[in-house]
Amino acid sequence: MSIKKMISEHPQVGADFNQPLAEAVKHAMYCAAICNSCADACSAEDVDMRRCIRLCSDCSDICEATYRVATRRTSGDVAVIKSVLQTCIEACEVCAAECEKHDNPHCRRCATMCRECADDCRKALDGMNAHA
Amino acid sequence: MSIKKMISEHPQVGADFNQPLAEAVKHAMYCAAICNSCADACSAEDVDMRRCIRLCSDCSDICEATYRVATRRTSGDVAVIKSVLQTCIEACEVCAAECEKHDNPHCRRCATMCRECADDCRKALDGMNAHA
Amino acid sequence: MSIKKMISEHPQVGADFNQPLAEAVKHAMYCAAICNSCADACSAEDVDMRRCIRLCSDCSDICEATYRVATRRTSGDVAVIKSVLQTCIEACEVCAAECEKHDNPHCRRCATMCRECADDCRKALDGMNAHA
Amino acid sequence: MSIKKMISEHPQVGADFNQPLAEAVKHAMYCAAICNSCADACSAEDVDMRRCIRLCSDCSDICEATYRVATRRTSGDVAVIKSVLQTCIEACEVCAAECEKHDNPHCRRCATMCRECADDCRKALDGMNAHA
Repeated sequence: MSIKKMISEHPQVGADFNQPLAEAVKHAMYCAAICNSCADACSAEDVDMRRCIRLCSDCSDICEATYRVATRRTSGDVAVIKSVLQTCIEACEVCAAECEKHDNPHCRRCATMCRECADDCRKALDGMNAHA
Repeated sequence: MSIKKMISEHPQVGADFNQPLAEAVKHAMYCAAICNSCADACSAEDVDMRRCIRLCSDCSDICEATYRVATRRTSGDVAVIKSVLQTCIEACEVCAAECEKHDNPHCRRCATMCRECADDCRKALDGMNAHA
Repeated sequence: MSIKKMISEHPQVGADFNQPLAEAVKHAMYCAAICNSCADACSAEDVDMRRCIRLCSDCSDICEATYRVATRRTSGDVAVIKSVLQTCIEACEVCAAECEKHDNPHCRRCATMCRECADDCRKALDGMNAHA
Repeated sequence: MSIKKMISEHPQVGADFNQPLAEAVKHAMYCAAICNSCADACSAEDVDMRRCIRLCSDCSDICEATYRVATRRTSGDVAVIKSVLQTCIEACEVCAAECEKHDNPHCRRCATMCRECADDCRKALDGMNAHA
């Protein structure tokens, strides 16, 4: 049950395994799931959480597209991968900033997850820019 | 069965309906579906279509995240919406350029769809930049 | 911009085009988008819509998986397609029943869409059972 | 980075945490990612993998809808959750049977993942049936 090992088993990867990108995939996969859960938990709170529901839903959708695209290793386009990583960083930072305003365990966990995901996407992006 | 009318019925939209963004939503929804279909049709062709499968799959995932995010009208973040539109334009242009290389009906239809989707996302983005 | 024509252009489809299944694909694609929009619009209402948000979110996710699976024509598994159509009918009926309780335009539109999608999935399923 | 702990932090869960369902969520999340990766790796193989690409793509889409629906704890519908779990079991078993035919590391890993996901969905379903 390791998405990173799975990517390394792609027939064309071998020694060319991109560790920071695989790390970003793993965290974006988790962040998609955590944000989907946070949107649901927020809707069950008794205070007005509509902005948090919105931003968690956006972040979940974007993280999911990001991890699916960044997982693939067959003949991709570098500009597309870099662009989706950039959008993922944006969505995660905005979602984290909103979740940090709310004092409940699911928002705290979601904010931490979003910050980690943004960091990993940034490292993957830096690595891809260094190779360009 | 109109996603544009649906968006206009959001309780906070009213006179503030964003026509170019709603157009982009409709075309990104269709483009997600057409690219998913094209990836499948490409895998059934007897020639090597692996790059086309890859780019159609990426474009489908990104269009889907784009239309879901751009549909929402509750308390969103403008920078996130603009960033996902930008990524969608990138993915659509790259996918169209690849599909245009292949002489079969599904790739021709997919290329046309991707160019239209990119155009609509560009208009929506221009509209949002003009209001900033 | 026709997902039904797109499916008919798959290299192995030809005379074997499944009209009711293609109709179900089109409506499930729209229903995924309409339910995603309704969940967002419900979160902006001033009354308690949390059950409606939940069921629209579930229905959107299930419709999306359904249309993506039912679109593909390369070497599929009939039991999987039938099972996802069955789940889609269930999710649409439950979502429609909830939306029908709320007197606002987006819930009315969403309920109508869900009933149509359930009907089309039922016809596609009946057609597949008749061929079994 | 634990989707199970995240679910337990939903405001209405508390002592009512459903352990087998949370286990199914975790594995369906991973299975969605592993199958998406396997479809991509299969398209890069030099032998005909089109049936495996198809069934991995279907399984990825269905696992994703399953984990998103099964994660939510706000006011859900038991019949919808049970139906999507049933479809997920079907898709995972069919995908595993196909992957087991291919002697490469990504298909072996994907088959193992699919069998585990099917097992966990079955346990979650049994638990829900026992409570009905």
